[in-house]
Amino acid sequence: MNMLDIIAKKRDKRTLTREEIAWFVEAVTNGDAPDYQTAALLMAIVINGMDHDETVALTMAMAHSGHMLDLTDITPYAVDKHSSGGVGDKTSLVVLPLVASCGVKVAKMSGRGLGLTGGTLDKLESIPGYNVNLSETEFRALAKANGIVLAGQSGELAPADGKLYALRDVTGTVQSLPLIVSSIMSKKIAAGARGIVLDVKVGSGAFMKSVQDGVELAQAMVDIGVSAHRDMIAMVTDMNQPLGEAVGHALEIREVIDVLRGGGPADFREHCLEVSAHMLWLAGRGERWTDYDRINAQLTDFLDDGKAFATFRAMVEAQGGDVEVVDDPDRLPRAAYIETIRAVQERYIAGVDAEMIARAVFELGGGREKKSDAIDHAVGAVVHVNVGDVVQPGQALVTLHANDRDKLAHALSLVHSAVTYSRDEVPPLPHVYETFVRRAAAG
Amino acid sequence: MNMLDIIAKKRDKRTLTREEIAWFVEAVTNGDAPDYQTAALLMAIVINGMDHDETVALTMAMAHSGHMLDLTDITPYAVDKHSSGGVGDKTSLVVLPLVASCGVKVAKMSGRGLGLTGGTLDKLESIPGYNVNLSETEFRALAKANGIVLAGQSGELAPADGKLYALRDVTGTVQSLPLIVSSIMSKKIAAGARGIVLDVKVGSGAFMKSVQDGVELAQAMVDIGVSAHRDMIAMVTDMNQPLGEAVGHALEIREVIDVLRGGGPADFREHCLEVSAHMLWLAGRGERWTDYDRINAQLTDFLDDGKAFATFRAMVEAQGGDVEVVDDPDRLPRAAYIETIRAVQERYIAGVDAEMIARAVFELGGGREKKSDAIDHAVGAVVHVNVGDVVQPGQALVTLHANDRDKLAHALSLVHSAVTYSRDEVPPLPHVYETFVRRAAAG
Repeated sequence: MNMLDIIAKKRDKRTLTREEIAWFVEAVTNGDAPDYQTAALLMAIVINGMDHDETVALTMAMAHSGHMLDLTDITPYAVDKHSSGGVGDKTSLVVLPLVASCGVKVAKMSGRGLGLTGGTLDKLESIPGYNVNLSETEFRALAKANGIVLAGQSGELAPADGKLYALRDVTGTVQSLPLIVSSIMSKKIAAGARGIVLDVKVGSGAFMKSVQDGVELAQAMVDIGVSAHRDMIAMVTDMNQPLGEAVGHALEIREVIDVLRGGGPADFREHCLEVSAHMLWLAGRGERWTDYDRINAQLTDFLDDGKAFATFRAMVEAQGGDVEVVDDPDRLPRAAYIETIRAVQERYIAGVDAEMIARAVFELGGGREKKSDAIDHAVGAVVHVNVGDVVQPGQALVTLHANDRDKLAHALSLVHSAVTYSRDEVPPLPHVYETFVRRAAAG
Repeated sequence: MNMLDIIAKKRDKRTLTREEIAWFVEAVTNGDAPDYQTAALLMAIVINGMDHDETVALTMAMAHSGHMLDLTDITPYAVDKHSSGGVGDKTSLVVLPLVASCGVKVAKMSGRGLGLTGGTLDKLESIPGYNVNLSETEFRALAKANGIVLAGQSGELAPADGKLYALRDVTGTVQSLPLIVSSIMSKKIAAGARGIVLDVKVGSGAFMKSVQDGVELAQAMVDIGVSAHRDMIAMVTDMNQPLGEAVGHALEIREVIDVLRGGGPADFREHCLEVSAHMLWLAGRGERWTDYDRINAQLTDFLDDGKAFATFRAMVEAQGGDVEVVDDPDRLPRAAYIETIRAVQERYIAGVDAEMIARAVFELGGGREKKSDAIDHAVGAVVHVNVGDVVQPGQALVTLHANDRDKLAHALSLVHSAVTYSRDEVPPLPHVYETFVRRAAAG
């Protein structure tokens, strides 16, 4: 087998065998395949596609390219979630404690943010002392002891995906269903998940702009997951406006704590309940969680009675974070300048463009372009309105938190154009467009 | 402008502008474009194609990526020829002296062989002392003084093509009409040609295996050449059997001298007369060469009366070659072992597979895999028969010239399988399948 034959095959729109894909992934992992050959093959895949079997083979080859995490000594059925990334998406931070409160152990590896949207790890680091860099031994020990751990991804999981992703990013080969699916699924599989809840975001603030593209991605991921013997639930959810109110690291942690204490914005609380219910339903195979009504009632109780909050607090404490900050969110990093834009006339809100809100927060210093860039945890935006709301003159629309006057001015102009109005009534945006559920055949 | 946008545009099957193509070629030339980005773009071009205007833009950008040779002080109308490469193709070595004998100055840069077939320079170096490495000043001085010069290509002509070709070779992106056309045409244009005769070979010993592919390439090259304001003639000629009898460097020089002295194999002499006539017809724009009958009569005379030979001899002398070898070809390098395979029965010759003959000569040491490999000038094959000939038992078919017994044995077995027979009459192979002629609009 050699790289030129594999490239020529895909160039000529033929189907690669499982052996050829495994050979190629190993060559990438070992550094034997020069970047220019890998780039040529990636472009051929982007244009000529990969069928179901090829995508399964690519997913499994990448999952097995490094260490495979085995969580069976921690829980008989590991359940994980993944979001395709959205503005104000702090869902994991609520969902994990909530699911753990129900007695389902969660051991999750999360990512950092690159580009406009922040990552879960960056948000957690708003809490002074919180340690996301755990060894596998520490990670396992915390999961066993507390039933919950949330840390950074070990470099050894699916290293082929890391190498391929870095190259796709600089060769115009990101946009490809088989490559996107295999990238996400290989990491989840390598991280030991048996059941996976996927939240595919669609809209202006998401990677996928149209519902149709999101549905296609969700279906493809479910197909590939099931073929890889994983139970799958994929939701296609709205990301035309930010999720919840807060966008920005410390501001999002504050909102997470609000929800874990029974409060917070209704849309975000709803979203967390739904994702948690899916995770529990998957984990309930052969256990007590069998129907959604009972699951939902239980989850709502745990938010309202403080059980989920206590679980979150315990996780922060176990990972070295300052629990006084959790108890009193006013101690979170705070920005120097706070400014609110307000409605001028009575109008319906026609749009709160998620991408522009994200761009404003990025301009304030809340994002990074390169991995090495520093992040300002205090800055961000709080969006007080949703599409479909009617606002009165003087009503607060968006509050910006900034540490630099010039950046604030720039961000304000972005936020001004993010919000659009209508004289006529505007229907609220749907929350979930579609949900796909498929269990793998018992094996 | 940036590389990622250009890659994405071609990936999405859109048309690149002349400015985008020029920008990309400059980035490749300067080394600013990393190989992996160039490879991704090349693969997108191979799969999604380039239209006429894009191919013209690519050709001209590559031609202008380095020094543009201006021959107008040597001749008002420079004419050049190019062969897509064949087995036993020593045409330039006859055609150039023949055309120069007619008073049309020729200043040609040739290439070396890589792979199975040898290059014109390698063949010339069978003549001791012949210097192919001329500075541009020397090259021009010889062209002016003698009306003929034949040397290696200066590294400064169309450097973008050199870089792109090296990358195409290792990324499975060689097979693409717009890339092949622009590669050939950019070099010819940079070398100062106003009129170009292209000899597109088709068959087992050629890059293009089918007549249809050859016709397509010939038409595309004529189209692009005319759009680049060059007068074009493209012939599609047979390469299922070797051209002439000799394959191998010194053996081919001997055959060249035979033809220049009025002898030699009929098919090769015919081919040289035709290519020369096309070159003269092109160069005759506004001069005295206006019709093929007069041109052909003149050319035949110059072969038969020794004028063409004298021009060749003068060229060799001017470039430092040993003219005693030209006068007495027995002084050319000779191989230690000479062995002839012969017919066993009375049969028609059904095939003399050009690729297998080339492979046999390659095995004997007559080719190179890497630029740095040494070549044995003495070895080779002389093919005594053509497809359609009837042979008698004992009649010589192919004679091999070798310097190594083991290699000889291996080459003999290849040659044995190269020749195929028939009890029934076999028509001879056509020499020319199609010829395309188009002059550029006067400008």
